[in-house]
Order: sequence, then C-alpha cells, then structure tokens
Amino acid sequence: MEAVRGGKVEFHYIRLANEIEGRVASGHIGIGERLPSLRRVQEQKGLSLSTVYQAYVELENRGVIEARNKSGFYVRAQIKKLLPLPSAGHFSLKPLKVKVNTLAGVLQNLFDHPEMIPFGAAIPGPELLPVKQLSRMAREIGATYLLKAGGTGYGSPTGQPELQRQIARHLDWYDGFSGEEIIVTGGCMDAINLCLRAVASPGDIILVESPTFLCYLQLIEDLNMRVLELPADPVHGLDLDVLARTVEEHDVRAVLLNSNFPNPLGYRVAGEKKREMVRIICGRGIPLIEDDIYGDLYFGETRPTTLKQYDEQGLVLYCSSFSKTVLPDLRLGWVVPGRFKEKVKRLKFNALIATPKLNQMIIAGFMETGAYERHLRKMRNTLKVQVGNMTRAVANSFPGDTRMSSPEGGLVLWVELNRGIDSLQLFTRAAEVGISILPGAVCSSSGQYQHCIRLNCGVAWTPAVQSAIVALGGLITELMA
Amino acid sequence: MEAVRGGKVEFHYIRLANEIEGRVASGHIGIGERLPSLRRVQEQKGLSLSTVYQAYVELENRGVIEARNKSGFYVRAQIKKLLPLPSAGHFSLKPLKVKVNTLAGVLQNLFDHPEMIPFGAAIPGPELLPVKQLSRMAREIGATYLLKAGGTGYGSPTGQPELQRQIARHLDWYDGFSGEEIIVTGGCMDAINLCLRAVASPGDIILVESPTFLCYLQLIEDLNMRVLELPADPVHGLDLDVLARTVEEHDVRAVLLNSNFPNPLGYRVAGEKKREMVRIICGRGIPLIEDDIYGDLYFGETRPTTLKQYDEQGLVLYCSSFSKTVLPDLRLGWVVPGRFKEKVKRLKFNALIATPKLNQMIIAGFMETGAYERHLRKMRNTLKVQVGNMTRAVANSFPGDTRMSSPEGGLVLWVELNRGIDSLQLFTRAAEVGISILPGAVCSSSGQYQHCIRLNCGVAWTPAVQSAIVALGGLITELMA
Repeated sequence: MEAVRGGKVEFHYIRLANEIEGRVASGHIGIGERLPSLRRVQEQKGLSLSTVYQAYVELENRGVIEARNKSGFYVRAQIKKLLPLPSAGHFSLKPLKVKVNTLAGVLQNLFDHPEMIPFGAAIPGPELLPVKQLSRMAREIGATYLLKAGGTGYGSPTGQPELQRQIARHLDWYDGFSGEEIIVTGGCMDAINLCLRAVASPGDIILVESPTFLCYLQLIEDLNMRVLELPADPVHGLDLDVLARTVEEHDVRAVLLNSNFPNPLGYRVAGEKKREMVRIICGRGIPLIEDDIYGDLYFGETRPTTLKQYDEQGLVLYCSSFSKTVLPDLRLGWVVPGRFKEKVKRLKFNALIATPKLNQMIIAGFMETGAYERHLRKMRNTLKVQVGNMTRAVANSFPGDTRMSSPEGGLVLWVELNRGIDSLQLFTRAAEVGISILPGAVCSSSGQYQHCIRLNCGVAWTPAVQSAIVALGGLITELMA
Repeated sequence: MEAVRGGKVEFHYIRLANEIEGRVASGHIGIGERLPSLRRVQEQKGLSLSTVYQAYVELENRGVIEARNKSGFYVRAQIKKLLPLPSAGHFSLKPLKVKVNTLAGVLQNLFDHPEMIPFGAAIPGPELLPVKQLSRMAREIGATYLLKAGGTGYGSPTGQPELQRQIARHLDWYDGFSGEEIIVTGGCMDAINLCLRAVASPGDIILVESPTFLCYLQLIEDLNMRVLELPADPVHGLDLDVLARTVEEHDVRAVLLNSNFPNPLGYRVAGEKKREMVRIICGRGIPLIEDDIYGDLYFGETRPTTLKQYDEQGLVLYCSSFSKTVLPDLRLGWVVPGRFKEKVKRLKFNALIATPKLNQMIIAGFMETGAYERHLRKMRNTLKVQVGNMTRAVANSFPGDTRMSSPEGGLVLWVELNRGIDSLQLFTRAAEVGISILPGAVCSSSGQYQHCIRLNCGVAWTPAVQSAIVALGGLITELMA
C-alpha cells in the first residue's frame, strides 16, 4: 500500500484534509461551522493526534478553515467565484424617461408578506441586528426623554447634537468633522430625495450606474427627472474613460452612486479610482450624490474609502443610514450635503419639520457605549458567511449556465440566468411557493436584465432558506423547459 | 343709605358680583382660578352666606364663573371680543410665485432656542401634553416591539394596522371607516407634501386662504407651484361667491385649507357652508387638500365637521396629525387620500419607505386605552383658558388701536397692529429680549400683513408669560414713537 511508503504520514493528513474540503464544498459542512475537536477526529478515524492536527493546518493554509482563539477550527466564508461573473450591461447613450413605478408597485407587495422567504428586499434579518441592546436602549430613552427640558417640542431640523456627534465619531475618515456638517434624515432614501431636489429640477439628467438600485429609479421618476445609465463591470465598476466622455457629452445635472459594494453588483472600488471619479465628475461642477449605505459591510480587512474623502469643492453630498446596519424601522439616515447644506436643510424642514428625537436618542445611546463598532464587526463576519453559503447554494442548485456576482461587501447577490428566462415570470412562480426575489427588469430603465435576479443575503442561513434556493433552481429549470 | 331700603339684599350681592367681575376683567383674578369659598368671603366681607351665594350665582348667570362639581366656583375662559377684529386681507387676482423661504429660514431659528418665550411657533407646551402616559407607553413598547415576529423589518408603507384602526375609531364621523383608507405619514406637513405632489405639478396654481399658514407657502415654493390667495374674514372665513368665481376664472389645480380653526385666524365654519365649499371646489373636479390638524381643539360644545364628510367623489384628501394634540416629536400624521391613494402611497414609499413602527405603536397603545379622548377633553379646557388669558393680556398691554382675532379653537391668536409697525422689526426687538413671535409678513405671498403678528397660546400661562406680553406691548409702543 502506498500508505506504507515514505510519504505515509503525509498521505493520511492530506487524505483527511481532502475529505473535509470536499464535505465543505458539497455543503455537508456549512460555512461558519465548527469542525470536530482534534481528539474527536482522532477517535473516529483511528488516526494519530498529530495527523489530524496537520490536516487542519493544511486546511487553514488552503484558506478553507480558520483557527479561533481557544475555541477550535471553523469553516471560513469563501466567496469564491464558483460561477462565471455576470455580463456587463449595454451602454445606451440616450437619457431615458423612467417608468418603473407601476411594475415596482406590484413587486413591493413583497414588503407586505413577512411569512415569505425574503430574497427580494435588501434587508438584514433580525439575527444580524443588535435587537436586545436596542430594546434596552428604547425602553430607557422612551421612559425618560420626554421629561427632560424641551423634550416634548420639535427637535432641530438638522438633528439631535448627540446623534450628530456619534455619527461624526463613526466617520473617523473625515478630519475635523464635528457633526454640525450633518443633517439627520428619515433614512437614506429620504436623504437622497432631498439631495436630488436640492441639486436638480424636473427634466434634468441624473447619471446612475447600470444595473442600479430600483429605488433610485423610482425617485427619479417621481421627480420627473431623466436617467442616464452607465454600465458597470461586476468587478471593476465604471470605466473612467466612458464616465469622462459621458459627462462631457451630456448635460448631466447630478451623479447618483453607491460608492461601496453597489446594489446590486457588490464590487469594491480602489481609493485611487474614487479620487479620479470625483475629479472627473466634480471637476465639471457636477454634484455627486454618494450613497455609502453598504460601506461598513465590507468582507475584506479594511473599510473602503468614500468619494466624500476626495471632495475638495463641497460638491459631494454624502448619504448613509442605519437601516442596513442597526435597524431599518427607526428610519434614520443622514447626509453631509457640503455646499448644499442650507437648501437640503430647508427642504427637509418644510416637508418633515424634524426627525423624531426618540429614534435619534436610541441610536445615539447605542453608539455612545461603543456597542456599534463591536456590533459591526460581528455583523460583517456573519454576513460574509451568509453570502458565502448563498453563493455556494446558487452554484449547486441553479442551472449550469448561471452567472453570478462576487460581492466584496453588502447584502445582495446579482444572478444572471439563461437569456431565455423571464425573471418576472420567475418572480410570480417563486411568490406562489412563498419566496420573494427581485427581478432584474426593475434595476434599469433600458429594458436590460430581464433575465437577471437579485437575491438578498441578509436572511439567516437555515435549512428552509437553503431549500428555497434549491426550489428556485428547480423553478428556473422548469421555466427553461 | 340705599342698603337699608327694600333692595338691600340685592344691593349687597350685586355690589359683590360687580366687584369680583371687575377683578376678573382687570386680570387680578385669572381665568381658570378658583374663587374663595362662600364661607371665606362671608368672613372677609362680613356678609351673609346667602348674599355671597347669590353673588356667585349672579356671576354664573353673567357667564363670568362656573360651578364645578363639589370643588367650588372657577373663573370661566371668556374669549370675548375685547378688541376689534382684524381686517380681512385684500384680494389679488394674480397667482403668485412664492418667495417666503429665505425670510422663513431666518425666522426658523426660533425653533432652535428653547429658552425663549415661545409665541412664535404653534406648539403645545409640555403642560398640555400627556407626558407621563406617553413615557410609560414608550418604555413598554420600546422594550418589547423588536422581539415580536417581523419587529425588526420595515413597516408597511401605509402604516401599522393597529394605528390605522385607532385613527379610524377616532374619526367616528366617517361611516364605515375601517382604517385601510388611511396612509400614516411623518406628520401633517409630510401628508400635505405628498398630497400636493400627488395632485399638482410645478407651475400649477394652488388656492389657499389669506392670511395662511407659513409652511403651506414654503412647501408650495419648494415644489415650484404658484399660489392664489383668497382673503378670509376673521369670523366668517371665505366668501363662497368669491370662491366660486375664483375657481371658475382661474386654472386652480388644487385647494389647500385648514378646515377648522385655520391658522392663523381660528374661526369656525358651519357644516352647511363646508358642504357648499366642497360642492364648489370638487364640483369642478378640483382636488381639495383638507388640513384638519386643529379640529379636535374646539372651544365650543361640539367637534366641528370636516370637509371630507361632504366629499362624494373621493376628491378630498383629508390630512391631520398628532403633533398638536399628543406629541410633536413622534412625527406622526395621516392622510385619507380618497381616489389618490395609490399615488400618495407610492410617493411616500419612494421617499421614506415606511414610518417607524415604534412611534406608531406608542400612539396606538395610548389611544387603545381610551386615554386619548380623555386627554383631549382636558387639553381643550386648558387651552381655552390659555387663549382667554392671552387675549385679555394683549387687550390690556397692547396699544389701543390693536385688533385681534377671536379664535373658536386651535393654538394661535392673530393680532393686527398699527399700520406703522413693521412686525419684522418687532420680531428682531422681541428676540433680543427672549421672546419669539411670528411676523405676519410670512403668512402671505402678497406683501400684506407686514403690521400683523401671530401669537402661540400653547404655552402655559405663567407670570413670565404674562410679563412677556406686557413687554411686547411696550416694544410696540416704542416702535410707534
């Protein structure tokens, strides 16, 4: 037997390592799962303790597992390119009138059915959120805040200083930030709505990337603006030459972008490229509305930079929110509007007067304890595992010609199916079996992406969720037949 | 002595009644104050118990005091016409482009200084609000709501069913109302903003009354619409003939009105007149945005009707909120948009996604206990007393040529000063001594009312508040010199 020859010991640990890697690849051992202890495997397999240990080190070297301090070995999240990347969109040089709301209105019923498997909306599940800490904070603030001086009146239209300070502390990349530059809003979409209204008028052209976030298009339609869609590469994002040519050739009134892990593609943009984007756009005096809602949900080692960091003219309106990282329901976001501050403040005041102090004080209290940064670290790990599990499940359950994004952060996967598939039809069939998805048709105004879907990875990885992916794969196969 | 003759007893009780009425009129005995007990007065004055009793009955008959069950006699709120009514505005047949925001922006600093005597904004003081009950409810809901199924997700864009049901129950004038007709919003201005956007476009003419609520004008300016101002009589409101002629002669796209106790005039409109208004406006297919935010704050015996009650075509968009009656900070209002429901829902979703469930559940919980109706009864009484005190203080402290509204509900007084007074100058002088007021200049786009001011009566009646009115009177006298 080969095992008797010189390479005997290696043979055993390699065989064991291969066996475990195979079980991880097939999904028998889940991402984030703890491997059995060395002693347990030693007993089960009749191998020496050092052989098992060597197998685990080998798996660690291969990037399959990781050792955690004193608690053993765990399967790592591997967001490997298990499937080819989706194709980039086609570039249409025509600004388009947007018409997505009618279709979106039909789809939005997905928000109203909590019993569905929620792959549709990009929402973090309750397991990802600091529910207990927030409940404690809500109880404490709720009981006391009205009894303080001025507690019952309207808050300041720009927000509570307590929360502004905490946000400023969190945005530590921004030198000399005091918090007064911030206007607190009722979520990120409220911030973007205010920004669009502050910098553009009906008929104006707004540049977005393609595919893009459905709600951008809905807002632009509501405001009777037009959209110019620039195709983004699933890994490299926008082409700078094309961007430069586009803002030169078109009367672009504003640019609206997810700066990090854009919805739906999820790629990461290097800092130098961001600097160049700001130069190209703001260099022409064009306001750049930056939506950084996913910036804290990175899967790599460091937080990516923001476009705002490279803004020397006050032309970047930096928007973000707590909806993806703390709690959607509190409806709290913010904007650093640069030179448009007075206009944004006025538009906010006139429509909403103020944001509830109650909600702001809950988040401010939560952040003040330092719990926010701790929570983010934990959330990023869990989310990365969920995206890895989802990625693998799609690779295993969807037809062989499926293509898929390889997100480096954020909540969603972008999946390109066979061109014969109508994702609206898939949406309907999936809804019938209790699964919501987002059809690609609503991620553009140009009629592309009819064969694509977006999947939310914010949902906790359970057998029911895994089955739902298998079921989706089955529906796609059926639709192709 | 006359007292010895036949009319002796009458003489004593009449003299006593006159004396007390004089002390009430001069402000030595405040509105809402309890009169000394019969026995106390008997001892002090050396009169018989029955004489004192007769004097009190006489005062009750004169409407000066009222007996309260087992607790004695109290000075009634008398919102008497102590001063002549303000003049009605001039009618300009021209739709105007609105330009109030720049000035309003300067004035709005009044929201940011809680240490000022707050006569500027129309806000109920903490003493008027159910602070303890709301704190209890906020603590309870805050501690528990996230732990329920679906607690962490976005709420429905139309609102929480619990709150919709409670609002429907409160709107008991509306037969067969289930709550599903309602869209919950982030306050009344949010509701009005959504309605204006749903029914009109930039450039369109919006009809309002004059003087009107500053924030209407600010919104209309933000939306690039035009305004047509119809002067309202301080007692009778709009002239129906003029209204009919105006909607016939102008391309009015929508009408925006406070239906009850309009800000700033505070008059009451009879039900029959409301029916006629709806007939005139909606009969021409014009949407009527009804803002009933003050409807529950009536000083009479019964709640006034709404315009919505006479709407047979679904053209009335009924807006209201909890900001004036429960708590401004929760930022909760609602709209019953009639036939515009889908459009309003979509506009709300696209900009705000949803209203925080936390805030909605707090109010729903508060209303469910029946505490809301009890609270409103108490609040109306207190508010009526405050308006009465304010009215008298203005009559006593302002120059003799002052004119003043005689509100039948709501939070504010409208005061017309000598035409030589520039109320913006008065605003500045008052701010210097720690008093905020609203200058009439911002209550119209037509340049009228520069010599008028609006005073908030939501503030509790204290010696400091009384002194502030005296101080205002002094500033006016100085400005006239």
